[in-house]
Amino acid sequence: MIKSLVAAIRPLDGAAMQSARKRQDALTKPTGSLGRLEDLSVQLAGITRQCPPPIPQRKAVLVFAGDHGVTAQGVSAYPSAVTCQMVLNFLAGGAAINVLARQANARVVIVDAGVSGDLPITPSLISGKIDRGTADMSCGPAMTTDQAREALELGARVAQAEIATGLDLLACGEMGIGNTTPASAIVGVITGMPIERVTGIGTGVDADGLRRKTAVIKQALQVNHPDPTDGLDILAKVGGFEIGAMAGAMLAGAAAGIPVLVDGFITGSAALIAATLSPMAKHYMIGAHQSTEPGHSATMSYLGLEPLLDMHMRLGEGTGAVLAMNVVEAAARILNEMATFESAGVSNR
Amino acid sequence: MIKSLVAAIRPLDGAAMQSARKRQDALTKPTGSLGRLEDLSVQLAGITRQCPPPIPQRKAVLVFAGDHGVTAQGVSAYPSAVTCQMVLNFLAGGAAINVLARQANARVVIVDAGVSGDLPITPSLISGKIDRGTADMSCGPAMTTDQAREALELGARVAQAEIATGLDLLACGEMGIGNTTPASAIVGVITGMPIERVTGIGTGVDADGLRRKTAVIKQALQVNHPDPTDGLDILAKVGGFEIGAMAGAMLAGAAAGIPVLVDGFITGSAALIAATLSPMAKHYMIGAHQSTEPGHSATMSYLGLEPLLDMHMRLGEGTGAVLAMNVVEAAARILNEMATFESAGVSNR
Repeated sequence: MIKSLVAAIRPLDGAAMQSARKRQDALTKPTGSLGRLEDLSVQLAGITRQCPPPIPQRKAVLVFAGDHGVTAQGVSAYPSAVTCQMVLNFLAGGAAINVLARQANARVVIVDAGVSGDLPITPSLISGKIDRGTADMSCGPAMTTDQAREALELGARVAQAEIATGLDLLACGEMGIGNTTPASAIVGVITGMPIERVTGIGTGVDADGLRRKTAVIKQALQVNHPDPTDGLDILAKVGGFEIGAMAGAMLAGAAAGIPVLVDGFITGSAALIAATLSPMAKHYMIGAHQSTEPGHSATMSYLGLEPLLDMHMRLGEGTGAVLAMNVVEAAARILNEMATFESAGVSNR
Repeated sequence: MIKSLVAAIRPLDGAAMQSARKRQDALTKPTGSLGRLEDLSVQLAGITRQCPPPIPQRKAVLVFAGDHGVTAQGVSAYPSAVTCQMVLNFLAGGAAINVLARQANARVVIVDAGVSGDLPITPSLISGKIDRGTADMSCGPAMTTDQAREALELGARVAQAEIATGLDLLACGEMGIGNTTPASAIVGVITGMPIERVTGIGTGVDADGLRRKTAVIKQALQVNHPDPTDGLDILAKVGGFEIGAMAGAMLAGAAAGIPVLVDGFITGSAALIAATLSPMAKHYMIGAHQSTEPGHSATMSYLGLEPLLDMHMRLGEGTGAVLAMNVVEAAARILNEMATFESAGVSNR
């Protein structure tokens, strides 16, 4: 299934992008004065193969949750049980992602990709539990290769169901106590940056916790030796179920020609996995938010993305991505709705 | 009138701000993880004297237009006639500010503060023409002291009318070919920065144009000797009608306890004028967008503001401010709608 998704991802439509650039220059404003909104509108034209690109009306954020065996090593400021509790909070509509998605008029799709605890059976929750949390990656692989494939396919299937409902803009988010640890490992392996420089405080560990976390990641890499060119191998050895699911969802979005907002540090690590499986998928991605995690900049550089927002946020859940949906919509609207110098009778320079 | 506005501007409500900070720490997220949204929510509580602050529903952008005698010195890439033509474009709904304000669900209030050309008489346009453009500030004062007072009062009256209609969030914007020239002069005088470091390409002059523009500003300051501590004097000598009107509108917003979004470079210069008249007004301001004009950073530092967005935009009209309305709304919603650790049954660290 993943192979067929990768095969379906096409280069962006150059002709639509050229039309978009030309149209931007004809609109009633100094050339280039809308800055990144202009570049983004060109990318949207390329992704959707239309100029002007449609204004994104149908939006969704897929929030994947999973637990991490490596939390046994004391890498997080919060207990593992919080993953499960926060999923219940998502279901009740009280988390930051619920609030910001309501504002953005985006559907929130909540998926149990591998939470340790039991979650209720309800139509509001997609039960895709691959296992009750990953194994402790500092002692061996976080999951089997089959489970890694299953995680990718879970995400892809959830995304495809949303696409079938009607979707113009896709975002991914996550919840998983401890997941900055696998994310830092993935970022270190794929970008080649030293682990010290891609490991941060996550939800808020202290200096001792940060030293412990860094050592644990180094140990996980020594024990597992993931292949930096093989996304599936990296995911299995030092990844997470929610991370794999996000990577699969991103591939499905790209394959369907839908722009994919990349939220923060954890989603960035999933984007790296996706880009390792399909380098072309990067062109369908839009960097939403600059995370305060130190490895995020290296991630964005590797992906060729420059995040739209920098609110000093470090929450995850997809919060940065849904906050940035407004900017994506603005970029599309400008190209659709602004008058040209000619149509408005305004003198050009 | 301006004196009574200044007298009406109160310090922010410290108790409401303290409640907001406390509430942020109780919400289901790692402490501080919503970064600038948290700080902004605290400011909104202080401005509106309520915790949680109301979610801004009624929003307006006041767009003031004016012409500049100094364009005779060749300081702009566009002809003066474009000011008038762009006002017609605003009235027809085809400009960037119309598009982005529609998206933000903000009212657009268009005001002729001193356009050279004749504009139609229509209920969609507030005719506040103080004069047919300012005088050339490189040869003498841009306007009389009476006209400067009139400009401030025009803006204040327009804002007050909007406030009377019902207003939760105020933004100002402008249109005026040549107006980065007076804005740079104002920024130089008030911040004390060298003119070379606060003068940029505006709508896109070349290197020769930039040298000419810098020389013209220096000459204007030598000819006029504005008093750096007297906003009215600076406005009269090296300002503009639309700049004065924006400053007046900002004072009226602050006096009414309404948050005021400061758009880009020209609105920043108006905010400096307002802050010179009432230092307390700064606390009601929210920096919306980082302009690419070199003097904007000095302006924001002086005002104690850090712009929310940086989209490499340099258009004015209020475009950055209406784009940032989404972030202001998000900050208020978080404090209103998120669950607490206690209410959601989530374990704290």
